[in-house]
Amino acid sequence: MRIIALPLITCTLAALALAHTDDATLEGSPSIAQRYRESAERILQAALAGNDAYVKLQELCDGIGHRLSGSPQLDQAIQWAADTLKADGQENVHIEEVMVPRWVRGAESLVMIEPREAPLAMLGLGGSVGTPPQGITAEVVVVRDEEEFEALGAGARGKIVLFNNPMPPYDPEQGAGYGTTVRFRTNGARIASEQGAVACLVRSVTAHSLRSPHTGAMRYGDAKVKIPAAAISTEDADMIARLRARGVPVIVTLKMQARTLEPVQSGNVIAELRGSTHPEEIVVIGGHIDSWDVGQGANDDGAGCVMAMEAINVLRRLNMIPRRTIRVVLWTNEENGLAGARQYAKDHAQELANHVAAIEADSGGFRPIGYSVDCADDERLQIAAEQMRDLTSLFESIGATSVTTGHSGADLGPMKEAGVVLMGHRMDGSKYFDYHHSHADTLDKVDPEELSQDVAVLATVAYILADMPERLGQGATR
Amino acid sequence: MRIIALPLITCTLAALALAHTDDATLEGSPSIAQRYRESAERILQAALAGNDAYVKLQELCDGIGHRLSGSPQLDQAIQWAADTLKADGQENVHIEEVMVPRWVRGAESLVMIEPREAPLAMLGLGGSVGTPPQGITAEVVVVRDEEEFEALGAGARGKIVLFNNPMPPYDPEQGAGYGTTVRFRTNGARIASEQGAVACLVRSVTAHSLRSPHTGAMRYGDAKVKIPAAAISTEDADMIARLRARGVPVIVTLKMQARTLEPVQSGNVIAELRGSTHPEEIVVIGGHIDSWDVGQGANDDGAGCVMAMEAINVLRRLNMIPRRTIRVVLWTNEENGLAGARQYAKDHAQELANHVAAIEADSGGFRPIGYSVDCADDERLQIAAEQMRDLTSLFESIGATSVTTGHSGADLGPMKEAGVVLMGHRMDGSKYFDYHHSHADTLDKVDPEELSQDVAVLATVAYILADMPERLGQGATR
Repeated sequence: MRIIALPLITCTLAALALAHTDDATLEGSPSIAQRYRESAERILQAALAGNDAYVKLQELCDGIGHRLSGSPQLDQAIQWAADTLKADGQENVHIEEVMVPRWVRGAESLVMIEPREAPLAMLGLGGSVGTPPQGITAEVVVVRDEEEFEALGAGARGKIVLFNNPMPPYDPEQGAGYGTTVRFRTNGARIASEQGAVACLVRSVTAHSLRSPHTGAMRYGDAKVKIPAAAISTEDADMIARLRARGVPVIVTLKMQARTLEPVQSGNVIAELRGSTHPEEIVVIGGHIDSWDVGQGANDDGAGCVMAMEAINVLRRLNMIPRRTIRVVLWTNEENGLAGARQYAKDHAQELANHVAAIEADSGGFRPIGYSVDCADDERLQIAAEQMRDLTSLFESIGATSVTTGHSGADLGPMKEAGVVLMGHRMDGSKYFDYHHSHADTLDKVDPEELSQDVAVLATVAYILADMPERLGQGATR
Repeated sequence: MRIIALPLITCTLAALALAHTDDATLEGSPSIAQRYRESAERILQAALAGNDAYVKLQELCDGIGHRLSGSPQLDQAIQWAADTLKADGQENVHIEEVMVPRWVRGAESLVMIEPREAPLAMLGLGGSVGTPPQGITAEVVVVRDEEEFEALGAGARGKIVLFNNPMPPYDPEQGAGYGTTVRFRTNGARIASEQGAVACLVRSVTAHSLRSPHTGAMRYGDAKVKIPAAAISTEDADMIARLRARGVPVIVTLKMQARTLEPVQSGNVIAELRGSTHPEEIVVIGGHIDSWDVGQGANDDGAGCVMAMEAINVLRRLNMIPRRTIRVVLWTNEENGLAGARQYAKDHAQELANHVAAIEADSGGFRPIGYSVDCADDERLQIAAEQMRDLTSLFESIGATSVTTGHSGADLGPMKEAGVVLMGHRMDGSKYFDYHHSHADTLDKVDPEELSQDVAVLATVAYILADMPERLGQGATR
């Protein structure tokens, strides 16, 4: 875990004496951490004392379960979130209409029929077309990457191409290898169809498997022919690759009833802790309420949703109302369309100039480690990052002091052009992709204490960004 | 990992000078390790240079797959093993007939229907009866252990009892918690039926799950009513327990076509490296050729089988023929009956007095750590353990120097009464139960280099026990 050096906290005793006022002005004032230490301690203490976010997550995961766009479960989850936010006493709770795509998995199977009959562990990829009812039966050719696929050339014609690119194990320095591997899931079917393949299989994008297939979105892009695409477990990918390496022909039958239906109505859930003096200025915090249609969507992204919901709940219970508004947004359709994120940015286009920050938590419910910061305006980005290094020094005891710059959340993307400072609530990423988009993304993978730490940190950040006189990304902090 | 102190290797230079003859006599001779160091080095070097055991395991796992008693795959595996041993040039290769039970899983499913509809991850337990075609639909009651089950009393009547006893995580000192937890899988249905339950669910016996059900044997014993029994994933067990703890009724429908058919013919596979001067004295090494009907039976126990097969192959290639015979035995039906082990002990009853040792490898294909020793005769046990501490000092570089006493292998049990020294080839057990009896027991979980270390150690032990003038468990070693 990277720990960022924090010269800002080496302050004098004189400065410390100033640390207990929240009303310090910008010019010549002590650091953000100094000014907000007392407030932060109140919030952290209150949030760490409870596990109401976990109770919420339990209601969502056990009571409703997974919730893909267009499913009745997503409608239930959206209604549950709005009802819960109202019951918590939040303001301006409502659902903003979004039309979302509706992909339906249907029954599916993959069976090896040569050299022997054996069912393989698979999940169709989101957005894929289905197969004819009798399935597609063809020989499998295995490639590791684009280079091997190029070398295969016309050898893909009439075959099922397996992209067997292993995701590297989690590395504390490099993080997870998801970003370097997911392209085969996204684009495999498109490039395989260009060479005449009849279907596409992809090694699941995970470094750790117990015969666990991981689904996710795929895109046909400009493909002339849409061929079905499915993820298989790393174990099955390894087996096929071993058999092929020994020269053994592998034939499989892929059956998928997957289909894309007409778009349906869904919604982003909104709730606010209205600001005391500048309610028109907004700090957005949120996650996405939809999930894939497997597991319980606990880490992806039930956890992010309940963190945001509980963050304003903690502040309201403490009667800590910041100057600006904290707005919870639970986006719909992050997984297969981003329609919720686009709709939010469109519906609130006039307000975006008043969005002081937008924070998404979409990396599970693990121990918080800090924040990423992103902004189309580089000067603003650098200032905001510096302010966040100052602010997160308040989280030394929790270990959430890391501040990085770069991509901060898929649902934040549509706000980037407007110059909003975007932030990702970052967590320990060592386990996330073990569960991601799989049957194993279930509540037991979330530790209640770690989730409370997330709430504590997120509530504190939201409160300070909504309350501090200076605006994030603008002007010096001291 | 426990490292046993090895006072025996603190030898004098004079003793060292004797270390390079294998012909030392018993009286006044140096330690086993001293006498066999050169032989051991030859065997270790040859075994560690190759990965032929892994190639064999690949043929078994990828080419044939899992192999439950009574299945065509088990017949194939037995024939493959005999053919392979013959091709390796082994002697006296044959199959000894064994009648084995035939339990067939059939289609099966478990679906939660209240509070919401969701398929649960399950595997019927081996030996279970099936359900009526429409399944059994009933409310689930959850107990953690016998005490909670007792307290439930008549509350089990008409219900499906879930035994939700979590297996503790692997502990380097305590090992895996399998032994303390597996009793609910074995006996749950019997005790639940006594209280009028209509079916039994058991939390999978594993400490690490990705929604992975683990099957295994169950027994009805003297139960008056046989109720169906299935394992569910730890995640699903946790979910049901959480819902029940919140007072939410959970209703499920269990469907199982499981049935027990007439016993069928199977066989133990035998092969020998015949001894040069005392071929009638025998060191048995082996594993079990059957597996559960999921995954590939790679760690349980394809690995043990190929270790033994390759151990005599290495010795034969080196032309290192010991004085006594090394006999490979691949037992059938370890998983659900032990018919192979019983038949071997029965068929070879007259020979058992000449069984110098019987070694089973049935703990995966992980890094070797040493041996367990068991014997009905305590004096012989203590002598054998001491001799093994001496011998295993040869494996310091591999780290396989731990010698313990106690249970050494299910297939060895029927030989215990005859006073045979029984030994278990022990391995790093930190991962074994992550895969055990599940879809994830596949070849990728076996590291070729670790498997070669197993072969190296097992071949060396078998060679020395078959060659040393003194007999294991009898007389002082120096």
